[in-house]
Amino acid sequence: MGNSVIRGNLCYSHDRDTVIIRPNTYLVCEDGVCAGIFDTLPERYAALPLTDFGDRLVLPGLIDLHVHAPQFAFRGLGMDMELLDWLNTYTFPEESKYAQLDYADRAYSQFVSHLRRSATTRAVCFATIHTPATELLMEKMEDSGLISYIGKVNMDRNSPDYLREDSAEASLEATEQWICATNSRFARTKPILTPRFIPSCSDALLNGLRALAEKYHLPVQSHLSENFGEIEWVKELCPDAKFYGDAYNRFGLFGGDQPCIMAHCVHSSDEELELMKKNGVFIAHSPLSNTNLASGVAPVSKYLEYGLNVALASDVAGGDTENMFQVMAGAIRASKLRWRMLDQKVKPLTVDQAFYLATLGGGSFFGKVGSFEDGYAFDAVVLDDSALDHPQELTLRARLERCIYLADERHIAAKFVAGRRLF
Amino acid sequence: MGNSVIRGNLCYSHDRDTVIIRPNTYLVCEDGVCAGIFDTLPERYAALPLTDFGDRLVLPGLIDLHVHAPQFAFRGLGMDMELLDWLNTYTFPEESKYAQLDYADRAYSQFVSHLRRSATTRAVCFATIHTPATELLMEKMEDSGLISYIGKVNMDRNSPDYLREDSAEASLEATEQWICATNSRFARTKPILTPRFIPSCSDALLNGLRALAEKYHLPVQSHLSENFGEIEWVKELCPDAKFYGDAYNRFGLFGGDQPCIMAHCVHSSDEELELMKKNGVFIAHSPLSNTNLASGVAPVSKYLEYGLNVALASDVAGGDTENMFQVMAGAIRASKLRWRMLDQKVKPLTVDQAFYLATLGGGSFFGKVGSFEDGYAFDAVVLDDSALDHPQELTLRARLERCIYLADERHIAAKFVAGRRLF
Repeated sequence: MGNSVIRGNLCYSHDRDTVIIRPNTYLVCEDGVCAGIFDTLPERYAALPLTDFGDRLVLPGLIDLHVHAPQFAFRGLGMDMELLDWLNTYTFPEESKYAQLDYADRAYSQFVSHLRRSATTRAVCFATIHTPATELLMEKMEDSGLISYIGKVNMDRNSPDYLREDSAEASLEATEQWICATNSRFARTKPILTPRFIPSCSDALLNGLRALAEKYHLPVQSHLSENFGEIEWVKELCPDAKFYGDAYNRFGLFGGDQPCIMAHCVHSSDEELELMKKNGVFIAHSPLSNTNLASGVAPVSKYLEYGLNVALASDVAGGDTENMFQVMAGAIRASKLRWRMLDQKVKPLTVDQAFYLATLGGGSFFGKVGSFEDGYAFDAVVLDDSALDHPQELTLRARLERCIYLADERHIAAKFVAGRRLF
Repeated sequence: MGNSVIRGNLCYSHDRDTVIIRPNTYLVCEDGVCAGIFDTLPERYAALPLTDFGDRLVLPGLIDLHVHAPQFAFRGLGMDMELLDWLNTYTFPEESKYAQLDYADRAYSQFVSHLRRSATTRAVCFATIHTPATELLMEKMEDSGLISYIGKVNMDRNSPDYLREDSAEASLEATEQWICATNSRFARTKPILTPRFIPSCSDALLNGLRALAEKYHLPVQSHLSENFGEIEWVKELCPDAKFYGDAYNRFGLFGGDQPCIMAHCVHSSDEELELMKKNGVFIAHSPLSNTNLASGVAPVSKYLEYGLNVALASDVAGGDTENMFQVMAGAIRASKLRWRMLDQKVKPLTVDQAFYLATLGGGSFFGKVGSFEDGYAFDAVVLDDSALDHPQELTLRARLERCIYLADERHIAAKFVAGRRLF
């Protein structure tokens, strides 16, 4: 965490539409924070330890704003159903296994190991309803060196017996104990309140979670407007809510005072978008998941133009991979099919926009994160793309673009989180 | 190529809707052909050399029915345009480099090396208009041990000066010389006639190609109904053709006597489909390419129900990878978004159907290829999925499904083509 300097081909978003590429450039780290980008290293930094990454590409660490850690076990499986059947058939039975700590230990070790090797430097995770397993996941994430929010899930209705908390009171009590046990325990790993989604949470539970959010100043994450069947169900469950997001908002769990992430927002109405903008809610766009579960495609370039907070998410195991490069490529691809098949008024995402979403877009949830400009956290991923062979000369820009489609953990040569080198 | 036996968990299509999985099963190879599937090895085969692949999955080799070898150099690049602009901006300049044999040597070495390491056992490739480079590609493919058709491309109009043959006569003369030089030269590598697409080929050229197809009994490959702009252009160029496919058919280049592959068929009319069925034309469905270039999504499950010959294709570099597992996953994903956003009457592809398309669907173009049933060519890919870690027990079926989403060349432990082990 000392001060240091790296050198390489820096690639970072200046704004949502523009990636800046700085060849053979120095990046200074002071106290885990970016402290200057220089073509020639100023004399005052000459004594700092320098790591020269040569011709490699250096990117801000990628941010996964929505990932279900317990679902990593069945990534790539059971994607022949839509959301609600998928939850009941595959997801809930798998999540129930995390009542057993030895299973959780084995499964979470695999998840954390993959995430550590990936290009992801920060993540916001769902765990399960089980407090011991959730704390175990937090310990493992802390040890990994990654920075994360982890949520013990709340579910007290409309869920199978084997994956439902006994009552709102029991759920809230367990949650508060978990908060007290973990809120100050870790340097890099923090709790986030996690009502699964409206159908799984009674009014009493949601009311209690709002009180906990206020009492402990905690952020909130949940799911929103992912699937037509889900949206209809929420309408039935909450006849007084004006729209799905309003069902959260009426309980004070939709941004505003507490930071809030809502995953998906595939089918959000204009009213819902307006409230998200007003309340600063972060949208975790999950293109692979929304494709695999046939949910649809969120109009992301419209959200960007409208000035919403939008980020990318793997949403494992609706999404089949933790590789955020594939999520970027998936976002571009899904946006192209949406443009072609549904609505030519919403433009496809550009490479620059996908890069922004995976870095600065999600990083903003963590504060000044996701860029190399002064004052941003020194999170960096160094890409060695030499194994991606090519017969011709390629510009740095072309190399970056290729990595978005072709890179995986094999191409990550080094990784820094808040100034600390993980490997 | 001698007789031999392998043992493992065999996975192969029985029909277009059903994958058969046979655990710990023997597969006998006689003269490069599958000669029996046995739970217990019959005494008469006991003397044959046996390779036991233990708990690994054994699949028929995957078939890539449409791939542009020269475009592999820019895989993952320049996918921000639709087809016609993409051709002029990125593709034609790249293909013109293959006039230089040293460039072709470098580039084709990379392509063939990747294809050999992949799960693909057989491929049908476009080269470029350049005969020496095309012959070089054929030599490299022959040396790789893979089985392929390779096409020297014909283009005599509507193409830039630097990538257009001087006249129909010149194109036909070069093509016939190339056919004579290569038709009997290789054991595994054969020529296929390759008019690029209607816009690039004059009537005189198409007429001459039909004559060559008949004279030398050669198959034909081209592109069909990929993109709206392309389809409109063909209408203008061929006002007498009833539909795009009819423009080929009027020149005898649309199946029937000569086997024929048409790539894409995203927007084929009912008339076009009817003629393809009548003529036995193979459709090379290229989901990644059709997504990347925002062309749309072919209604593949409808084509299967209608009884058309359908196969999968990487279509590098419209598609960004030669990995046919990703093409299978891409086909399923694209079909789900089509179902959600365009037409709920056409069902999404199932895992079984995607597997069929990548094996038996494309294999049929080569004869009895793409299955392990008696009489099929002994093409096999052995998957070691142990690196795809998981905390729970998985069925063989689940392991196969996971590989479709997660496997790449790292997981291929062995590969056989027509009875010959490549690695």
